[in-house]
Amino acid sequence: MAEHEIDERTRNLQRPATEIIMSTHTEPSEDLAQERRKATFDVQELSYVLNEGKDLLEKKQLFAELLASTPWGDKSRRYFLDREEEYVGALRAAFGIWEKMKSEKLSVEDAMIMRTLVDFPGGLELHIGMFIPSVMSQGSPEQQAKWMPLCTKLNVIGTYAQTELGHGTFVRGLETTATYDKETQEFVLHSPTLTSTKWWPGGLGKTATHAVVMARLMLPDEDAGAAGGSREGEEEGGSVGEGEEEGGSGGGHRTVVRDYGPHGFIAELRDLDTHLPLPGVTIGDIGPKAGFNSVDNGYLSFDHVRIPRENMLMRFAKVTPNGRYVPPPPSNSKASYATMVFVRADIVKNSGSTLARAVTIAVRYAAVRRQTAPAPGERELQVLDYQNCAATLLPLLASSYALSFMGAAMMERYRAFEAERDRGEFGGLPELHALSSGLKALCTWIAADGIEECRRTCGGHGYSKLSGLPTLFQNYVQNVTWEGDNNVMCLQTARYLIKALVGVQQGKPATGSAAYLNQVSSELSPSSRCPAACSDCWAGQPAVAAAALRHAAARAVVAAAETLRSASLAASGGTRQMVFEGRPWNENTVELIRAAKAHCIYVLHQTFLDSIARLEAAGAAGEVEAAVEAGSAVSGPTAAVLRQLAALFALEQLERGGGGAALLEDGYMSAAQAASLRVAHRGLLTALRPNAVPLVDAFAFTDYHLNSALGRSDGDVYRGLLEMARGSPLNATQEGPAWPEVLRPVLAARSKL
Amino acid sequence: MAEHEIDERTRNLQRPATEIIMSTHTEPSEDLAQERRKATFDVQELSYVLNEGKDLLEKKQLFAELLASTPWGDKSRRYFLDREEEYVGALRAAFGIWEKMKSEKLSVEDAMIMRTLVDFPGGLELHIGMFIPSVMSQGSPEQQAKWMPLCTKLNVIGTYAQTELGHGTFVRGLETTATYDKETQEFVLHSPTLTSTKWWPGGLGKTATHAVVMARLMLPDEDAGAAGGSREGEEEGGSVGEGEEEGGSGGGHRTVVRDYGPHGFIAELRDLDTHLPLPGVTIGDIGPKAGFNSVDNGYLSFDHVRIPRENMLMRFAKVTPNGRYVPPPPSNSKASYATMVFVRADIVKNSGSTLARAVTIAVRYAAVRRQTAPAPGERELQVLDYQNCAATLLPLLASSYALSFMGAAMMERYRAFEAERDRGEFGGLPELHALSSGLKALCTWIAADGIEECRRTCGGHGYSKLSGLPTLFQNYVQNVTWEGDNNVMCLQTARYLIKALVGVQQGKPATGSAAYLNQVSSELSPSSRCPAACSDCWAGQPAVAAAALRHAAARAVVAAAETLRSASLAASGGTRQMVFEGRPWNENTVELIRAAKAHCIYVLHQTFLDSIARLEAAGAAGEVEAAVEAGSAVSGPTAAVLRQLAALFALEQLERGGGGAALLEDGYMSAAQAASLRVAHRGLLTALRPNAVPLVDAFAFTDYHLNSALGRSDGDVYRGLLEMARGSPLNATQEGPAWPEVLRPVLAARSKL
Repeated sequence: MAEHEIDERTRNLQRPATEIIMSTHTEPSEDLAQERRKATFDVQELSYVLNEGKDLLEKKQLFAELLASTPWGDKSRRYFLDREEEYVGALRAAFGIWEKMKSEKLSVEDAMIMRTLVDFPGGLELHIGMFIPSVMSQGSPEQQAKWMPLCTKLNVIGTYAQTELGHGTFVRGLETTATYDKETQEFVLHSPTLTSTKWWPGGLGKTATHAVVMARLMLPDEDAGAAGGSREGEEEGGSVGEGEEEGGSGGGHRTVVRDYGPHGFIAELRDLDTHLPLPGVTIGDIGPKAGFNSVDNGYLSFDHVRIPRENMLMRFAKVTPNGRYVPPPPSNSKASYATMVFVRADIVKNSGSTLARAVTIAVRYAAVRRQTAPAPGERELQVLDYQNCAATLLPLLASSYALSFMGAAMMERYRAFEAERDRGEFGGLPELHALSSGLKALCTWIAADGIEECRRTCGGHGYSKLSGLPTLFQNYVQNVTWEGDNNVMCLQTARYLIKALVGVQQGKPATGSAAYLNQVSSELSPSSRCPAACSDCWAGQPAVAAAALRHAAARAVVAAAETLRSASLAASGGTRQMVFEGRPWNENTVELIRAAKAHCIYVLHQTFLDSIARLEAAGAAGEVEAAVEAGSAVSGPTAAVLRQLAALFALEQLERGGGGAALLEDGYMSAAQAASLRVAHRGLLTALRPNAVPLVDAFAFTDYHLNSALGRSDGDVYRGLLEMARGSPLNATQEGPAWPEVLRPVLAARSKL
Repeated sequence: MAEHEIDERTRNLQRPATEIIMSTHTEPSEDLAQERRKATFDVQELSYVLNEGKDLLEKKQLFAELLASTPWGDKSRRYFLDREEEYVGALRAAFGIWEKMKSEKLSVEDAMIMRTLVDFPGGLELHIGMFIPSVMSQGSPEQQAKWMPLCTKLNVIGTYAQTELGHGTFVRGLETTATYDKETQEFVLHSPTLTSTKWWPGGLGKTATHAVVMARLMLPDEDAGAAGGSREGEEEGGSVGEGEEEGGSGGGHRTVVRDYGPHGFIAELRDLDTHLPLPGVTIGDIGPKAGFNSVDNGYLSFDHVRIPRENMLMRFAKVTPNGRYVPPPPSNSKASYATMVFVRADIVKNSGSTLARAVTIAVRYAAVRRQTAPAPGERELQVLDYQNCAATLLPLLASSYALSFMGAAMMERYRAFEAERDRGEFGGLPELHALSSGLKALCTWIAADGIEECRRTCGGHGYSKLSGLPTLFQNYVQNVTWEGDNNVMCLQTARYLIKALVGVQQGKPATGSAAYLNQVSSELSPSSRCPAACSDCWAGQPAVAAAALRHAAARAVVAAAETLRSASLAASGGTRQMVFEGRPWNENTVELIRAAKAHCIYVLHQTFLDSIARLEAAGAAGEVEAAVEAGSAVSGPTAAVLRQLAALFALEQLERGGGGAALLEDGYMSAAQAASLRVAHRGLLTALRPNAVPLVDAFAFTDYHLNSALGRSDGDVYRGLLEMARGSPLNATQEGPAWPEVLRPVLAARSKL
């Protein structure tokens, strides 16, 4: 750049103008420091709760420093990478953690913490998250002995290929086939249609050498022509017995096969020396996505590819060498339910911490961002002091706490279930499964929508990737779709709830989170009334809001059941009371989904209250210091703030979430009570405002983890933006990449100026 | 790839398995053809309405073909470009259209259509959208004569630099200064703080050679020490008169200056020969964003940079050579209001077509996507036949029509205003400005949230960029922030509405869209009741839903006014009834924003109904064929479907949007009416279902414009995905970019397998 000297006269000319500007100028870092002085509770105490104790919190902070110092963990260029760089970078990070784990003898849990902090999903996600667990849970002992050492040494990298171009949620509709060839004792994997192309598996595109492939098992039909099973092809070519099949090849004859539905098969996809796809295997990356572009989600099709019989995962179902099917024992389905419960509980846990990251960024920035001076010459206001900003962020802050407590509670319930399972007890599984399904949906909706709300609340700068929020949203939002589309998840919960309600009506008590259905007739009696006598009740008496949410849930479940009953009777000509499938079900999913949501909101709030009560009780008992450091106790002031958050969570659902309309409609809540609820809601916004920054600080995210110019803990957000922006690839040259070939020719006539 | 030969025996083994698969296989293109046969109305007729006539529709189709055939208009690699390629590609496209315009003598309107179709925002957005309009509207005749030819020949490329790192909505808070130096007759542009760095202007990063810079005009204070104006620096160094200033340089004396607030200045930023930033000018790209990455939004700071006095835009305010300020005439503010109205009306128009693109993709895909077979051996159901899917997409379809009609009506109102303005009449401007503000907010919210809802409804494939939906959302969502943050926009509308209500109470009738406030006392009297007597009324009698939305709006405005009144009285110690600023205003923005939204929803529905009535009346008059081709008339069956859409739009707002809660609370709507509203809403979903695909077809988007594998008009979505995915940059090699340096070393021990 040309030299630019400024003479003293010019500086003097400017000086008074600068003084005018400086007279109302504010420093964001001072604003944030000021916010922290307002805390009415012990932030550290709450940090231990949210991070499962002092030791784990300190470990996270240590790991963050360690990761930031590695070339593969450094995040300074993270937002500038193109697709290839993202993909390669994420693999480097995954391998980096793998190496650290070996070299420093870290536990699997430690490695998982590192994976969370480095926050760079890559080609190994499904190796770790699906391939290894599939081998462990569905492989026979021999299969585990063969494959697990290869997996842990990274001699093979696996993925899990289930969904297809044309098939997702409905697993039985998969079109990939695995046809057994008794003669060679092999399965032939084949993709008979375009829509059977496997699509989406992470790591499949360019990384994985192997996959667990879900394919419809086709075995010779040993009693072709007899009844039973789904069977095809009998019309054409006649049925051909096994003897003929063994003897002949070619000749236009067709074996009659029987479809045993989807099963898992380990297929080798790539040559281990060249990494090239094996003959008959077509693989590729499926292209860019809204986010998650560091992962090579892939496609895969098979053209009559043979794999050995031993590659069918045979812990449960089996195929004998001569092609006979051995069905899985009945307990198998319970085990697979348990796996789903674990995965969903993990998603719930993750929803809280992810939303908390977004809320941390947005609240800190809203505390330092100033807009509009009340009068000339005054400083502009912090945007968090505008009611609509507080009314967006503080309920989201409350939600991030509600989801965090729910995640912890789900994990605890899952561990309790494991203990029961080891005793052979499966009685609690259906309720746990139903709850985990609906909560997976509700919590990921709250988190995904909440992240985007946080982003919008940051104004223009929230749109910059340097804020961290676009990437957080773009990577996270798929959670509403994967591991079960949220609407489908809600329908599973609705099915359970309606069946539980029918059970109650038939004298079989509902249990667990659905136990309130036992009192449904008194709950919904015309005399049932909201007990709120004043606006203080709504905010100060947790039982009032809890009762309202319970009433809303009971009402929604009953309404859904009645809708389903009418439709069932209509569709069956009055012969069937409740049809849980077909048109009666599919054409009334709106009410069904609503019931599941109302139930889960009630559970979220109740769990929040229970968690506070437990923490406070522990804080009032002996050995308090150890309990606080373990994250299992809080003192009174902390519990008081948590109760305000729980109240705001509940009132937000009733006031803005629309839950209140149902209560008005059935007369449970009066117009006066609806008005006092609004007053209480607004009052909580004011009450929580001073603790807003301390409450996000309590999550104790490191700056490394957040990787956000707006969320930095020192509040120096504008310096953060400018320093990060300088590294933008477009800034590699002063003229920019379009100058030589595009801009220069067009601007050529510039001498005319 | 190694050769892969399949013997006849293997083929025979596979064949019956394939036959089983094929027995329930469906072809998406057949599904879509079947959907089109269900139309109950003339799709072409409606296409003319939505595309402003047959001629314009055909022109769009022609242009799409033309653009697809150019190297710069081709979209086949659009989703695969990295940031630099996007930036360069978008500029190439912009220049390509510019050339076409010259070479084929196209009109500006034609060029704008091409810009919409090519859908590639770039470095020229603000040259076209802000720099040229600023010169035209704020430049003196001499300035226009100098700059316009340079602009239109692209000898200069401009941008508009207003927002700063620390300042957005509150323009008076900008920190960049322009201090006049009388001696040299120059302004010194300076960025006195980090936060004064200009941030966000499109094209500023690497493209623009010039900018209109908004800076606070600082002039020597001719009567320093006297009262008036915002003034600083008097305490330090004493005031220095002009004489001294002229004579001296250096010496520590300071000129006392006066701040005249933000004004526009044309600054040259880059050397026209080298494209390097000029001395004292620091420029760069601000880095990647959630979307819109083909645009080089930039940052800019000045270090005492001198520009000639003539570069201040002086059509209205002026600075004389000896440094005297000539204020703008009073009519100036009206003109700038008018510009804002135009920009916001344009955003409203754009919201409808953008949402319609998303709905087109989602509805077509939901019609061909199948999920879950009702019984073994049956075909899976089209997902559009699940109620929750229809309940998401059909109301969004209705919204896309509502917004489209609103956009057309806003443009018409703007043109009517222009005619009034030319007669010197400005009476309708405040109402039009208030309406355009609130509608800008509401319509962009509906569109942005609707696009994302459409994306989610497409399941996993909606997450793929190849669906077109992620890019549409990521590029569009900034509309809720730019050109006035939506909440701030709503507050402008609320201010107008409350002032109108106060006026009504003082005997001054409200006009235009706010005229219903004249009947507010009867509207909100305790005897005011919803006239719906049955569920058919809700769907079949437009006046019923319109009355409910009007009641909801009146109630929300009155509630907001009452809230503001209480707060104003409390804050002023009972002396002021209504304070439209400070704490009374800022701490009650939730109710204020709610009022603005309720008002705009009412207007949207009313405009929808009015548009249908006008189209139908024209369709029943003479000269029908010409009117239909002009897009200004429809026949009865088309009007009937449009009325169903309008009804669904209204009931969705009442039923799912939460509007109904307020009506229940104040007793306008009974519980029975709320229940019948639900029935009517669900009934409309069923009634509209057969026309879903025809109704999106009527928007008549070309495949070129949509650029979506899922939205393609032939329905061959899975082939579309696969063909597009093959071009993914990760697929450039079979092994992928991580193999040589990252994967190979880790997988090295592979011989052990």
